Amino acid sequence: MSAHRSLVAIGDLSRDEITHVLELSDRFAEVMSRDIKKVPTLRGRTIINLFFEASTRTATSFELAGKRLSADVINVKATGSSVEKGETLKDTVLTLSAYQPDVIVIRHGAAGAVASATRYTEAAVINAGDGKHEHPTQALLDLYTLRKVMGKIEGLHVAFVGDVLHSRVARSGAIALQRMGAKVSFIAPPTLLPRGAAQGLGVHVSHDIADIADADVVYALRMQHERMGTGGFVPSLREYATQYGIGHQRLRPGQRVMHAGPINRGVEITDQLADDPAALITTQVEGGMVVRMAVLYDLLSDPKVQREAHDVSAMVAA
Amino acid sequence: MSAHRSLVAIGDLSRDEITHVLELSDRFAEVMSRDIKKVPTLRGRTIINLFFEASTRTATSFELAGKRLSADVINVKATGSSVEKGETLKDTVLTLSAYQPDVIVIRHGAAGAVASATRYTEAAVINAGDGKHEHPTQALLDLYTLRKVMGKIEGLHVAFVGDVLHSRVARSGAIALQRMGAKVSFIAPPTLLPRGAAQGLGVHVSHDIADIADADVVYALRMQHERMGTGGFVPSLREYATQYGIGHQRLRPGQRVMHAGPINRGVEITDQLADDPAALITTQVEGGMVVRMAVLYDLLSDPKVQREAHDVSAMVAA
Amino acid sequence: MSAHRSLVAIGDLSRDEITHVLELSDRFAEVMSRDIKKVPTLRGRTIINLFFEASTRTATSFELAGKRLSADVINVKATGSSVEKGETLKDTVLTLSAYQPDVIVIRHGAAGAVASATRYTEAAVINAGDGKHEHPTQALLDLYTLRKVMGKIEGLHVAFVGDVLHSRVARSGAIALQRMGAKVSFIAPPTLLPRGAAQGLGVHVSHDIADIADADVVYALRMQHERMGTGGFVPSLREYATQYGIGHQRLRPGQRVMHAGPINRGVEITDQLADDPAALITTQVEGGMVVRMAVLYDLLSDPKVQREAHDVSAMVAA
Repeated sequence: MSAHRSLVAIGDLSRDEITHVLELSDRFAEVMSRDIKKVPTLRGRTIINLFFEASTRTATSFELAGKRLSADVINVKATGSSVEKGETLKDTVLTLSAYQPDVIVIRHGAAGAVASATRYTEAAVINAGDGKHEHPTQALLDLYTLRKVMGKIEGLHVAFVGDVLHSRVARSGAIALQRMGAKVSFIAPPTLLPRGAAQGLGVHVSHDIADIADADVVYALRMQHERMGTGGFVPSLREYATQYGIGHQRLRPGQRVMHAGPINRGVEITDQLADDPAALITTQVEGGMVVRMAVLYDLLSDPKVQREAHDVSAMVAA
Repeated sequence: MSAHRSLVAIGDLSRDEITHVLELSDRFAEVMSRDIKKVPTLRGRTIINLFFEASTRTATSFELAGKRLSADVINVKATGSSVEKGETLKDTVLTLSAYQPDVIVIRHGAAGAVASATRYTEAAVINAGDGKHEHPTQALLDLYTLRKVMGKIEGLHVAFVGDVLHSRVARSGAIALQRMGAKVSFIAPPTLLPRGAAQGLGVHVSHDIADIADADVVYALRMQHERMGTGGFVPSLREYATQYGIGHQRLRPGQRVMHAGPINRGVEITDQLADDPAALITTQVEGGMVVRMAVLYDLLSDPKVQREAHDVSAMVAA
Repeated sequence: MSAHRSLVAIGDLSRDEITHVLELSDRFAEVMSRDIKKVPTLRGRTIINLFFEASTRTATSFELAGKRLSADVINVKATGSSVEKGETLKDTVLTLSAYQPDVIVIRHGAAGAVASATRYTEAAVINAGDGKHEHPTQALLDLYTLRKVMGKIEGLHVAFVGDVLHSRVARSGAIALQRMGAKVSFIAPPTLLPRGAAQGLGVHVSHDIADIADADVVYALRMQHERMGTGGFVPSLREYATQYGIGHQRLRPGQRVMHAGPINRGVEITDQLADDPAALITTQVEGGMVVRMAVLYDLLSDPKVQREAHDVSAMVAA
């Protein structure tokens, strides 16, 4: 019953729509370069951030993106909310929707939870990560970062390394990168690499860390302790770090390294590399701000109006 | 030492005062029907939400009500606050009052805690639920919902069903409904129905679920697991659901069902009924927003000025 | 790499700079006396409150100070953030800095953590308490309170009593008071008084509670249960209260009592004294608001411009 458009899966966006978001992001990057980083674009609009999982960067990024667009932002966290009383996701969304927010940003531990939430609200819904499934704004900010740093996306080769099995970053990233014409590899130990899923995504698969040599960009994935349970996915973090951790000794000149954070220094990426300019980690975070401003703007603006470029310029003028 | 008026118990409001709040709520409902749901009415005012218990709907509702009136809203939760360091309610209120907020909204687990808080602040205090005692804005939003859906309150018969013993919703609701001329019943198993208290409120009491047949509105009360401890109030939730749970099979045509949420689907209300238009749950939540805007407006406006209807119209104009 | 000035240690401020903040605070106190306690001074600026420890008064005070200056304020708490996923302070600060906030206010359990944070951000950093080390805005608000109540600071004698060992309040306070020409004593049982540190600060040290007789102001320090572990610092809270607790019977007429809160009534201060006008506890909290407004204003304004008094007046005009 969604009256607004939503952003649940990156695959829902066409190549043109992705390009449109990236171009909008450039405009908001210009706003961020000003002394006063705020525009009145979404004044009077309401954004609810509904987070069922811990998050610093994504939650803060959406909150600040909303505030810099002059929207009112309400944070609802699972801890300290009615979820502790056993309320279902459905009822939580029905309740919050009765307040008539314009957008609900949802992070949830279960794959598919955000898609089901769209059935219970007329607000636009943004998937801020649903379990191992999708994280579309992460994919968009990764595209934005690559376009900015590498000058283009088409023809690039990006190798995701590590815990592919639990990674919505890898999954949404692979879909988005291929749609924009990049080549994608997954490189991981067999226990962290679901061969079937990889084939379904059409990416190249390898267990040999040496294969990162072919990539323009090495995307180190976080070892997600909190999702691992006692699964025995790797013998030990130390052994994982030795075999698959990314450090300077594994890279060739000119290769760039990405990571969606939070990073485990000394596990999937060395301390030294994390602080090297070859690592684009901070650039990705910066991109997250402007991409989320662009997505919020895109979802909430009148489609007829906001697709005219000159109007966009007017809307983001202070 | 309260310089402002406060809203601690629904019984403190006369019938005229309640009617005034409901009429103000209608005006804010008109604001909510606009594309931009925000008015500058309380710009520069400060509201502190002080919550010692988990809450989604009430905390979010007050926060959003405040923001849509353009007030600054500060959320203080027991978790992560000085309360963890052993500070008393008195000292917490004294501290927050030193910041000169205009309103402090308080939810607390102990009956009477909010009334005692009014002694330590010059801010207006709103009781957002104090233990088993009172929840006056819930009563107001229930009245608002009934008036909107049923066309009137006077002469209606509302039957509260279930865990009356632990329910501030039933207590405040019974007082408010009777003040407005409605008839109230409490229907519950003996262990969940304090006969003395019921008599004190002047309501009709029954242990027979069949007695809901007489009611225009059946108000299902949440089974409050978190207040039950190991009290053995009911043999099991399944048995409770069988004997007192409200579903279509128990209702006659035209009867309406209310619930203050969060609901336990399959316990006090069936899944199917919760999603039926006969259930007014979402309408109640919507009413909560405009009623809380009305209460905040009412407490913070100059009494001389805001009671003149034409001025109210001006104040809520965008 | 900090482009803005920061406030990490009170010792970094000269006597003139402290006086400047106190004078600015007077101007904001005038704003607080208005019906609408808000000025547009920092509109469009972003303040991130990054709290790794529980806090009511300091966190709320900074949030409200920021909002009353019309800044956007984002709260990030250790609970429910990426810190739960093992992210380091360094990476958290790097991430938040990528959003280009103007100020990051940090409370952390480890001495020196805030100073190290300044290396990872271009934002101005305010130390809101780092372990046992420093709490400079507390020192400033204590100075502000003394100047307001006693008329001057120079020549006063302030005796800090109790858990000096764990107290950043005593440490920052001693430095600030001496810089402004006051005399400072530490009075505590031997286990709570690190003689070496006291000598380093140049304060007078005593184990005899009778020595408070010489002081104009007795500053009772909170017994910090949460920092004590099983250290056996005092035989029991009751015995501590008997020997060092401050009550009317220990005071001479005209002596004033301060406490940074949260207070443990009946331990370091008696219930009766906490509620007596001789205790300046609430006055301190009020001072915290205006001093933090002054610090935020001071850090964010153009140094050339804001030091001209007439411009300050213009900036705080409604």
